[in-house]
Amino acid sequence: MCGIIGVFGSDRAAEIAALGLFAEQHRGQESCGIAASNGSYIKLCKQMGLVKEVFSNEVLEGLKGRVAIGHVRYPTCGSSSEYNSQPHVVETLFGPVFALASNGDITNYNSVKEKLQEKGVFFHSNNDGELLIRYIVYKIVYEHKTTIAAIRELMAEIKGAYSTVFMNRDELYIFRDPYGIRPLSVAEVSDGSYVAASESCALDLLGVKWKREVKPAEIIRINKQGLQIYENNAREMREGDSEKHCIFEHIYFARPDSFEYGENVYDVRKRIGAELALADDVKADVVVPVPDSANFIALGYAEKSGIPYEMGLIRNHYVGRTFIQPDQTVRDESVYHKFNPLSNFFTGKKVILIDDSIVRGTTLRKIVKLIKSKGATEIHLRIGSPAVQYSCFYGIDTPSQDELIAFQKDYREIVDFLGVDSLMYMSQEMLGRTVAFPEKYCFACFSGKYPVEIEENIRRKIIYKECDFSYHR
Amino acid sequence: MCGIIGVFGSDRAAEIAALGLFAEQHRGQESCGIAASNGSYIKLCKQMGLVKEVFSNEVLEGLKGRVAIGHVRYPTCGSSSEYNSQPHVVETLFGPVFALASNGDITNYNSVKEKLQEKGVFFHSNNDGELLIRYIVYKIVYEHKTTIAAIRELMAEIKGAYSTVFMNRDELYIFRDPYGIRPLSVAEVSDGSYVAASESCALDLLGVKWKREVKPAEIIRINKQGLQIYENNAREMREGDSEKHCIFEHIYFARPDSFEYGENVYDVRKRIGAELALADDVKADVVVPVPDSANFIALGYAEKSGIPYEMGLIRNHYVGRTFIQPDQTVRDESVYHKFNPLSNFFTGKKVILIDDSIVRGTTLRKIVKLIKSKGATEIHLRIGSPAVQYSCFYGIDTPSQDELIAFQKDYREIVDFLGVDSLMYMSQEMLGRTVAFPEKYCFACFSGKYPVEIEENIRRKIIYKECDFSYHR
Amino acid sequence: MCGIIGVFGSDRAAEIAALGLFAEQHRGQESCGIAASNGSYIKLCKQMGLVKEVFSNEVLEGLKGRVAIGHVRYPTCGSSSEYNSQPHVVETLFGPVFALASNGDITNYNSVKEKLQEKGVFFHSNNDGELLIRYIVYKIVYEHKTTIAAIRELMAEIKGAYSTVFMNRDELYIFRDPYGIRPLSVAEVSDGSYVAASESCALDLLGVKWKREVKPAEIIRINKQGLQIYENNAREMREGDSEKHCIFEHIYFARPDSFEYGENVYDVRKRIGAELALADDVKADVVVPVPDSANFIALGYAEKSGIPYEMGLIRNHYVGRTFIQPDQTVRDESVYHKFNPLSNFFTGKKVILIDDSIVRGTTLRKIVKLIKSKGATEIHLRIGSPAVQYSCFYGIDTPSQDELIAFQKDYREIVDFLGVDSLMYMSQEMLGRTVAFPEKYCFACFSGKYPVEIEENIRRKIIYKECDFSYHR
Amino acid sequence: MCGIIGVFGSDRAAEIAALGLFAEQHRGQESCGIAASNGSYIKLCKQMGLVKEVFSNEVLEGLKGRVAIGHVRYPTCGSSSEYNSQPHVVETLFGPVFALASNGDITNYNSVKEKLQEKGVFFHSNNDGELLIRYIVYKIVYEHKTTIAAIRELMAEIKGAYSTVFMNRDELYIFRDPYGIRPLSVAEVSDGSYVAASESCALDLLGVKWKREVKPAEIIRINKQGLQIYENNAREMREGDSEKHCIFEHIYFARPDSFEYGENVYDVRKRIGAELALADDVKADVVVPVPDSANFIALGYAEKSGIPYEMGLIRNHYVGRTFIQPDQTVRDESVYHKFNPLSNFFTGKKVILIDDSIVRGTTLRKIVKLIKSKGATEIHLRIGSPAVQYSCFYGIDTPSQDELIAFQKDYREIVDFLGVDSLMYMSQEMLGRTVAFPEKYCFACFSGKYPVEIEENIRRKIIYKECDFSYHR
Repeated sequence: MCGIIGVFGSDRAAEIAALGLFAEQHRGQESCGIAASNGSYIKLCKQMGLVKEVFSNEVLEGLKGRVAIGHVRYPTCGSSSEYNSQPHVVETLFGPVFALASNGDITNYNSVKEKLQEKGVFFHSNNDGELLIRYIVYKIVYEHKTTIAAIRELMAEIKGAYSTVFMNRDELYIFRDPYGIRPLSVAEVSDGSYVAASESCALDLLGVKWKREVKPAEIIRINKQGLQIYENNAREMREGDSEKHCIFEHIYFARPDSFEYGENVYDVRKRIGAELALADDVKADVVVPVPDSANFIALGYAEKSGIPYEMGLIRNHYVGRTFIQPDQTVRDESVYHKFNPLSNFFTGKKVILIDDSIVRGTTLRKIVKLIKSKGATEIHLRIGSPAVQYSCFYGIDTPSQDELIAFQKDYREIVDFLGVDSLMYMSQEMLGRTVAFPEKYCFACFSGKYPVEIEENIRRKIIYKECDFSYHR
Repeated sequence: MCGIIGVFGSDRAAEIAALGLFAEQHRGQESCGIAASNGSYIKLCKQMGLVKEVFSNEVLEGLKGRVAIGHVRYPTCGSSSEYNSQPHVVETLFGPVFALASNGDITNYNSVKEKLQEKGVFFHSNNDGELLIRYIVYKIVYEHKTTIAAIRELMAEIKGAYSTVFMNRDELYIFRDPYGIRPLSVAEVSDGSYVAASESCALDLLGVKWKREVKPAEIIRINKQGLQIYENNAREMREGDSEKHCIFEHIYFARPDSFEYGENVYDVRKRIGAELALADDVKADVVVPVPDSANFIALGYAEKSGIPYEMGLIRNHYVGRTFIQPDQTVRDESVYHKFNPLSNFFTGKKVILIDDSIVRGTTLRKIVKLIKSKGATEIHLRIGSPAVQYSCFYGIDTPSQDELIAFQKDYREIVDFLGVDSLMYMSQEMLGRTVAFPEKYCFACFSGKYPVEIEENIRRKIIYKECDFSYHR
Repeated sequence: MCGIIGVFGSDRAAEIAALGLFAEQHRGQESCGIAASNGSYIKLCKQMGLVKEVFSNEVLEGLKGRVAIGHVRYPTCGSSSEYNSQPHVVETLFGPVFALASNGDITNYNSVKEKLQEKGVFFHSNNDGELLIRYIVYKIVYEHKTTIAAIRELMAEIKGAYSTVFMNRDELYIFRDPYGIRPLSVAEVSDGSYVAASESCALDLLGVKWKREVKPAEIIRINKQGLQIYENNAREMREGDSEKHCIFEHIYFARPDSFEYGENVYDVRKRIGAELALADDVKADVVVPVPDSANFIALGYAEKSGIPYEMGLIRNHYVGRTFIQPDQTVRDESVYHKFNPLSNFFTGKKVILIDDSIVRGTTLRKIVKLIKSKGATEIHLRIGSPAVQYSCFYGIDTPSQDELIAFQKDYREIVDFLGVDSLMYMSQEMLGRTVAFPEKYCFACFSGKYPVEIEENIRRKIIYKECDFSYHR
Repeated sequence: MCGIIGVFGSDRAAEIAALGLFAEQHRGQESCGIAASNGSYIKLCKQMGLVKEVFSNEVLEGLKGRVAIGHVRYPTCGSSSEYNSQPHVVETLFGPVFALASNGDITNYNSVKEKLQEKGVFFHSNNDGELLIRYIVYKIVYEHKTTIAAIRELMAEIKGAYSTVFMNRDELYIFRDPYGIRPLSVAEVSDGSYVAASESCALDLLGVKWKREVKPAEIIRINKQGLQIYENNAREMREGDSEKHCIFEHIYFARPDSFEYGENVYDVRKRIGAELALADDVKADVVVPVPDSANFIALGYAEKSGIPYEMGLIRNHYVGRTFIQPDQTVRDESVYHKFNPLSNFFTGKKVILIDDSIVRGTTLRKIVKLIKSKGATEIHLRIGSPAVQYSCFYGIDTPSQDELIAFQKDYREIVDFLGVDSLMYMSQEMLGRTVAFPEKYCFACFSGKYPVEIEENIRRKIIYKECDFSYHR
């Protein structure tokens, strides 16, 4: 998962980019970077660390200019080095005048890269973003294409998810893959500048005149002449009929105050809770979320069921998100220090525990054990998504199938492993009811139906398995 | 505000201290430090920064030993330098063999310091903790007193709030001022080691055999012979009849999962919300907390009033607590990026907005303006405490009276300044009802009745003012 | 002044480069750098500091490869930034695969740079070396020339002094301007590898099979096929008949153990001393050099004159060379701490004080004053070169004419300024007698006769002045 | 070997200390430090590195005050850590108000340390200087002695070499052991301030009114009342009749421009060369020193013998002194890059090679081989000291006897090992003739006659061996 930002037309472009990245920090905490043009060339600062640590006033002072792009990164592929972080700036004899930042994974990365390498193009990293920028710059510099033409060729040739911002020294380009897998919005700000961002919450800071989502396969160019939209026939560019937005953005990744794929994220989350409650009939004293990702789902459940909502687990906010930390060992260790139950709260209570999803199940197991040790008499686990049985190849760092508990174990085994008194996943149907157009979403991590072709050497072997998880109690 | 920790009898003493400080990080984010004894002398590491940043495995490796104390600091007095951070280690010809960490402010700091200076004692800082340790060490080294005797003299002579841990190379001492102003608990861990901490949530991590609060004026010594309690007649040592716990710990500072002064913090907060609801009769669509400090108060209000609880404001957790950041400018700036309303949420709604307290009112004013701009039709502000009209001299960094909105303005002016449709503070009576023994608490920031004498040159001039804030609507 | 090194064909190429630079450290102490190819691309490390400080084993480990070039820098033009230091690596879409290091100054820098800029070529610095590499790479990448052809065009178009090493990922090129202004030698090492260096002392470390100087206008290519020489008709490429080596290398810059322009440097220096002695008839007790640059000249003088050689001034070797330190203030300050007279040595003595040259005269004046204060009865100053009246534009950092004492003052005034009892410069004729082919040398700093044309905007205004300095006593 | 400095009465005390240390840099290059009093307490900066690297203007700015002491260190005992570097500042409850720097080794270190440890005194290091300061401070603080009395007791109890400066917040004390083993001078500067230094060359910078050596067992106190001398009967305090200055200061350590033990160092060195020449009758073409330590000895030899003096070996000054680098491996490696012969110089020549001493012989062996490889037909090695057969325990870092070539091998074997055609050491008698009072010197490293008792556990076993080295050819 990553977050991107693009700014055009403000004297404080890099500063605005930093604010935007700060609002998108939840999308990636490993590294962050901003590239900014001073009109004659592009300067870049990217580093491991949080936005507020990296972008001091002094650093931003060095990034003065009117066009800027930025990126926060949680590593999906490639090692945790600076070369693999974004934005990428490509230097030619004409100077450092092209930069790009992208969110999503390329599914035919290897074959496209090899083609470019055969032409002599050099790669510093295994990062998808570097492939995109070198593809475009090669077309511009050595094949003398316009930028728009180069991006159109890219869309025809490169498969996968890529919500992208690209800049040269005086223009900003914004484009999104034909499936619209990852979110991307654009806005005009009251001072006449333009901003693009992965999530709309990053635009809200700025007092926008208007904002809208970038359409699948759309290319937007912003320069001194203003904003120009280049439409492509997205349908022709994809195998299936419809776009395929990532449903996990709604379930877990996006900030609840964002607006994505035509929906308020928090509304979707509350509807998820309500769907769970509707399907449920367990008797309990309290509804408790695993904070903070399940807070809204739990609220929705509580409202619909009439069982009181209680924040019985306290989260230490000085750790990062569980999902978002590169090393498994670190993730495990930190669980113990991340959640603490309210004192004397759980004693004698029947608890409905809500979480957004189960990936490996290791953290949840510890939480259940902790709550039991505090005297809860029953724990009924309710999950705001179907069972995750398949890996994602479009930009979410799901582990390989071996590590997915719902691939490794069946329903009964999972209940035993977690130590809960009952467990209910959502069905895909239930989840579909929480959005307006369920056919426009990718459910591959639940169903194994991958909408975009994945090259052999990229996808780890996918094993399909018959197993009924939905609607159990 | 600060947090302290003390550990005796574990081979991983410094590591346990770091975990405890991590749990108490909300009490101070400016600097942190740990001192640990390897049996022959004490090593110290203290730095600006968060616990997770400062205490790497490598640093902890260098702090091996079986006795350790630690401190997180939010600066109440003294500049933001390392000398002013804690723990303090005092070195004599006999080596660096004494260390101390304390929470609270000394109210006769200047006169005690001058006495010691007349004897030639040198001070590196203006920090209260350094006064305490030099006082004790002087008694031990130059007056040949026992440590217990030295601490008893300290209690008789030094006024104010001091929940303290003190160590030499093989003993840990824990003591608390006669009024018990700041919290302090101690526990025995299952492996036979002992831990003391400002808040019980720091003990919960460790699998404790038993835990209890340290009593006012109590001195606890832990060494190879085990734990020994030295009681003092606290009543004789104080002017008033009863201990005077800081009520603000319940309202704002303590983590909701802590147990302080015989109460579960989260219970008190929910009761505060319930008291507000009982006294209220406004009609509204939603109850929305200013997250995260008012979450529990809002839950209590919602439960009692039947109006739905909604987390309509999203907090970016990558900033620190508003209250806890040394520089006013920084505080102001960060407000804009800290809270974002849910999209389309407030439109047309009558909102009950809950906050824990109003100090300057500047942040709240911006929040109100933000919510209004999102279409809320009415905002009714409910505050989980009486009006803060007086500065604290016992360890909370309240600004001088000039900056307190409730000192500067009357009720009507505050309503206008904040731009709300109605405003209700709690009365002191209402607040008293939320705890078992209201007479055991200090309400000085609301009432101006300071239980512990404050030396002339420390207290800024206190101005009393007749003004009725309670129970307005 | 700078020193360069090039290595081909050793597995320890970067390490050998570092050793060579260490031997050439006297040619530049501000920054140093090494670029090395691992076969697929070129890595670079350049930093402010001395060779022994910058090139730790760890750094060299990261520069593994079989081709390497290096540079030590004393800034003649451009600011003291890292961008202005060398080697330069140019990156294109094909990666970082070209690197260059050069010694000498370009005299038509501005006009060549503008031509390239008109074609869109971007420059990071105002450094001569960057001009050379971008010139070559442009020819290779965009005009599809061979490297040899590109360098030949360079020699036809670019004027000035440039002893240069250029590399791609598997070849080393060595070339020198048609005048041979700066030194450059090449050697084959016993293990079959090749090394090029500014000074032969850098080759002596390595156990060479053979070494020789690179001829003016010669291009040498070394790759897997071995060493190939590409001769150019140097005479056609220059305005004058003969090469024009810098005579100052013999007088001051080169290490005495180097062999340059067909001469042993130390022999030339001793001959300079002998010439001075021959022309002199002053009676004195001792011959004392200003250490270390005048040691050999003084030895030659003493030998020829029969007056005892004494090292009466002790030099603190922990300072750098006087000439070599960017900032005038620093230079002045350090004079006092650099030289100390032997105690009781000078009392009552008539001293012949020898220095290699007088530039500003400020240091010498202080030395003279110091020696006088120690009781010397007479000081007769003898200078191993003619009066420096003109600035150098070929790579030596002489100040502008305003600062040259021999331009500002006449003979009598200089004697007064320095406070000596007598002063003798060499005549150009005398200096000519110390080398085999005086016509092959550039004497421009003494004569104002600049052999290579200097572009208007580069040369500061040159003022000619009639003034007889030579052979005075 | 170390160098010390003390300054009293100047507003720029720390800056003057830095200049003095810079002049004494040859006495220690590993670390350096300065302690300075601002009137109320002492600040300290000590670091690994050279004086010019450590003491920037910024650092000196932080050391403002009127009393300062300093130290450069080459580690004789203890590891290369900062704790083992000097000056030492001891902190008590009264603050950091005592500091000390010393040159020399204590020979009853262990027994004195144990006595203090029994009283509870703590040591951070194994450094002799820390023993001295804790001894003094204990007497002052816990036994209520005056500083003069404390130093007198120290002189009676502590054995060995200690030229020392000690300061409190407003006084400077200077004292030297009863044998006067290491040098120490004091001067009054023209502005009324006072400076003490190991070597007089450090005083020469300052424009002194008068300077003199501190006498053995003398204590000098400088404070607002001026300079006061406290004499002790040195003779009573030592076992032997006479002081015992280190003769190696004259041979190798001291800077030639220093005045030590009543002699000009350079005069002694030239006399050493003359003595060698007088005793010699070899025919040769040139006298060549191993630079720079043997330069003066070679000059003396050349003058007396009439054979020309030539600096045939060029030393790269960017390395340190061979003798002065902690790690043997580093020492060996650097030899190759440190000396380069003049090109074509040695061919066909008979060479008298002069060095000051032979310790291990490994470096000399390489130099001989190098010169032979350049075509020298004969090499006659002449050494400016007798054979070093015994370790020093008074402050010079001679290796243990096992590593001393003159202990391990006899004359013939050494000649073979070094590969020279002849070898002549000085006899002790010859060396004695070069100074006015040979009986006042310590020759223990040649004779094994240790003037000051060495405690069992400090001296490595000393083995005496009959072997005639002197006056061979």
